[in-house]
Amino acid sequence: MTHVPRLFVPAITPFHADLTLDLPRLVAFGRHLIAEGADGLAPFGTTSEAASLSVDERMRGLEALIAGGVAPERLIPGTGCAALPDTIRLTTHARALGVRGVLMLPPFYYKPLSSEGLFASYARVVEAVGLGLRIYLYHIPQMTGVPITADLIGRLDAAFPGVIAGLKDSSGNWDNTAALIAAFPHLEFYSASEALLPRNVAAGGAGCISATANVNPAGIAALIRALGTGAEAQALARAEAARSAFEKLPLIPAVKAVVALQMGDPGFAHVRPPLIAPPPPLEAAIKEAAALCNGVHALV
Amino acid sequence: MTHVPRLFVPAITPFHADLTLDLPRLVAFGRHLIAEGADGLAPFGTTSEAASLSVDERMRGLEALIAGGVAPERLIPGTGCAALPDTIRLTTHARALGVRGVLMLPPFYYKPLSSEGLFASYARVVEAVGLGLRIYLYHIPQMTGVPITADLIGRLDAAFPGVIAGLKDSSGNWDNTAALIAAFPHLEFYSASEALLPRNVAAGGAGCISATANVNPAGIAALIRALGTGAEAQALARAEAARSAFEKLPLIPAVKAVVALQMGDPGFAHVRPPLIAPPPPLEAAIKEAAALCNGVHALV
Repeated sequence: MTHVPRLFVPAITPFHADLTLDLPRLVAFGRHLIAEGADGLAPFGTTSEAASLSVDERMRGLEALIAGGVAPERLIPGTGCAALPDTIRLTTHARALGVRGVLMLPPFYYKPLSSEGLFASYARVVEAVGLGLRIYLYHIPQMTGVPITADLIGRLDAAFPGVIAGLKDSSGNWDNTAALIAAFPHLEFYSASEALLPRNVAAGGAGCISATANVNPAGIAALIRALGTGAEAQALARAEAARSAFEKLPLIPAVKAVVALQMGDPGFAHVRPPLIAPPPPLEAAIKEAAALCNGVHALV
Repeated sequence: MTHVPRLFVPAITPFHADLTLDLPRLVAFGRHLIAEGADGLAPFGTTSEAASLSVDERMRGLEALIAGGVAPERLIPGTGCAALPDTIRLTTHARALGVRGVLMLPPFYYKPLSSEGLFASYARVVEAVGLGLRIYLYHIPQMTGVPITADLIGRLDAAFPGVIAGLKDSSGNWDNTAALIAAFPHLEFYSASEALLPRNVAAGGAGCISATANVNPAGIAALIRALGTGAEAQALARAEAARSAFEKLPLIPAVKAVVALQMGDPGFAHVRPPLIAPPPPLEAAIKEAAALCNGVHALV
């Protein structure tokens, strides 16, 4: 099956200086990302510091994005929590708002987990939330310690036809993504890096959900448009150059710091513990990253 | 400093058949553990499936235990969550109820974390909760991926004198516990296994908080009484025998299954996904574990 390649941005979550949720900046930034060419948002994921948000904050944030004009069909909010009742509550809420799907982490405290235990956990959510649910599984073992295996995908897809919409592979392991695309061609597989976009789409994948899309949405959207054309190599090189500026930086705090520079608004830079602001010696590298992203943007 | 050695039980959390929280059984079991000789409870920790409970469930559970007659000064509830606002809410609630202290996991999604980030996270909680807070840090890197280091303990203890009450070392690494006891003799260090109790107490530790205390509270209380007497070796051997029956079993589901057998009430056995009930082939081993624990109890 061929999927239309798409960019969903795992949008950062702005905080006020007192670290409470900053809904106006969240909405403004979400609209900005769509205006820049993103197909949609995957808010409340890892880059969004969702694990540092309460269930109520996540629900209020999603409601604000939709009320602020981001169409629900453009949204794949993260709803997977450590605790099953939290996952059910968030998923029921997101489903009722008509989102395209939800990006669902596995429960990420207990480990190692059996395939049966993970299946039971996802099955409980599907049974509780009911009809019309579309789940994108979220494979990010470096954070969760709980991998999503092909065996689990197959079992869930067989038990709940049409419910499993796809998977975001944040492992960074292209061989894993390629094997999953080949095994489940009817599902949408997203890479977590724009550097993998050409390989992802050529293999039958569905696009990317990348942290650095927060700071280079137009460049990545341009890369998607250029796929399979003579402009692909140059668009890829530019996107990779912008991305590479973050390689030696603490990713989420640096992305927020660069967003703050790009938006001309230091209010975007606050992070919530356990993340902390980049220390002053990194200031020059952050300015350089912003300049690189802006340079790509100017060429789009 | 010498600490009076104590047993706090990381009490299981009973669920109804539909997996909702079973408050009557939670209270009955908490009272049973105290009656059997436990000094107190450390509910809503790992063995309690706390990571699978919502914040509201944890608060209702703690309120029920206290309303049901478990004295607050005997309680060290777990209050550490992935999300800072959840940790602050639970800790504020527990503090207001007058508990002995709280057992606080580090935020356990993002990793690796800097010492600065972890310090910032705990500092925010201390600042938000205020006077009279006593925190037991919870070191269980096999679940969290976020170790509590001596450096972090020292920084927190220096910044917030009197707030850091101690630490539960669930790493199973005795050398780590011994080094921490030596470095911070004024703090209470608990081992996560009764097998380490004699070493813990001899080195200046404060006792144990062990999963298998759910099924052998009287035997472990007897071991504490026997420490330093001629009866120590035998009491230790008995407690170790009971504990060893769980070595090849899925720990939490097996503990709950044995509690169900001991209480004569299958209602204690339910686990919430991602944990699952022990598969039928393990039934014999679970009965054997129950028999071993009951045998120790008969000798106390």
